Amino acid sequence: MLTADRLSLNTATVKEQWNLAECIDGAARHGLGGISPWRDKLQEMGVDAAAQAIRDAGISVSGLCRGGWYTAEGALTQSVLDDNYRAVDEAATIGAACLVMVVGGLPEGSRDINGARQIVRDGLAKTLEYGRKAGVPIAIEPLHPMYAGDRAVVNTMSQALDLCDELGDGIGVAMDVYHVWWDPDLQAQIARAGKSRMLAFHICDWLVPTSDLLTDRGMMGDGVIDIPGIRAAVEATGFDGLNEVEIFSAETWWKTDPDDVLTTMIERGRMC
Amino acid sequence: MLTADRLSLNTATVKEQWNLAECIDGAARHGLGGISPWRDKLQEMGVDAAAQAIRDAGISVSGLCRGGWYTAEGALTQSVLDDNYRAVDEAATIGAACLVMVVGGLPEGSRDINGARQIVRDGLAKTLEYGRKAGVPIAIEPLHPMYAGDRAVVNTMSQALDLCDELGDGIGVAMDVYHVWWDPDLQAQIARAGKSRMLAFHICDWLVPTSDLLTDRGMMGDGVIDIPGIRAAVEATGFDGLNEVEIFSAETWWKTDPDDVLTTMIERGRMC
Repeated sequence: MLTADRLSLNTATVKEQWNLAECIDGAARHGLGGISPWRDKLQEMGVDAAAQAIRDAGISVSGLCRGGWYTAEGALTQSVLDDNYRAVDEAATIGAACLVMVVGGLPEGSRDINGARQIVRDGLAKTLEYGRKAGVPIAIEPLHPMYAGDRAVVNTMSQALDLCDELGDGIGVAMDVYHVWWDPDLQAQIARAGKSRMLAFHICDWLVPTSDLLTDRGMMGDGVIDIPGIRAAVEATGFDGLNEVEIFSAETWWKTDPDDVLTTMIERGRMC
Repeated sequence: MLTADRLSLNTATVKEQWNLAECIDGAARHGLGGISPWRDKLQEMGVDAAAQAIRDAGISVSGLCRGGWYTAEGALTQSVLDDNYRAVDEAATIGAACLVMVVGGLPEGSRDINGARQIVRDGLAKTLEYGRKAGVPIAIEPLHPMYAGDRAVVNTMSQALDLCDELGDGIGVAMDVYHVWWDPDLQAQIARAGKSRMLAFHICDWLVPTSDLLTDRGMMGDGVIDIPGIRAAVEATGFDGLNEVEIFSAETWWKTDPDDVLTTMIERGRMC
């Protein structure tokens, strides 16, 4: 059972309804423990203004979404690196627990997934170096294999943790049940991550059927993921961060009154 | 480069246009090496009549799709087992190189993926026992993780090969590039499979974007999968079976003249 103060609102969950100021206010009004902004919302509000509003609201920041996308220009360009340095700075300014990395898919026109993975590795090394100086942990988010083509070529916990082992301190994983629930190796990899590498934990649900690869995630309890089982494994590592709710839902939750979305999140959290 | 005689037509590729008799005739007319029927088409034609027509056409049968679905009734019932025994018998009658197993997803209302995997393991053991007597190799098809909820809880080559190691001789994998291309561990697992476990090899492509989880597969060359690279690894094991083309494509290939589909398959095979 998760109480409201153990939940964090990822702004993507109400992205069509609320700007960041409204998300901060809503999270505080509903008694949530924190928030996790996407960068577009953060920049729209202004990073310093957002940092102040978050402090005033007395909530924490479970992550900043997102850095990464290293493959966007087909090679590791300075502009891609610079955008990630800015993301680190923004994460530091708002006191985010980590910068969540969606690493990028195959470059346009490419079929070279191994090459893309090498670009990602090199990019993460650069961002990590900068993140260490800024005191911002870098959290690789392994994305579901159905996004390997267009969003992220890091697709399992095992692969993400291999990268962490290679790159050293200051880097870990942001684990979303949506991306990893199917993995036969999940329990072992959660244990392998341990408290030091488990930087963020995201929850939502996998709907059956799923009507869209990107925008048909479910509210906790509406799908087939054993969230309490996965959460127990995560907490067994010593993880004591927030449970961040990130739901892309074009047809349901993005069309619902956002206060009702938060009320539902809190109700369903009690069953997680 | 694949010549036509190295290709097999999975009947799903033209399922909306042709019945099995037409598929057999079409495969032979276009000089394909073989065919792989789905059971609904096979039963519609009649198993003995189909066997005769396939012999008369002088083509081989790269597999029968499909056995499995062990979780359909929430437990391993006799009716589920019996249906798999019938599938083995059908595969034997048509001289199929293997019986392809789509093992089944979560039982209705269940969130217990480990329990479902246990049902599948027990079911495979029973079918394998029967398959050994009939001389029909059992081929586990690991399905893409996006099907873990509703189609198959075996989702990686590693998991399928662990099952094979546990169950012994007479069982292997049917590997479809669509399901496994994203796997960071793919090359190692293909080598692990070796010739003895690699019972079938299926090709198609992953489209970016993909508009539907089930019925938007691409023709080879239209997507992002490095088919020649994967095929080279498969053939390095000694695999010398046919390259079976299985494309679920509601909006494109199921709406195309089936002779044009086969012509395109053959053209694209030259680039694989």
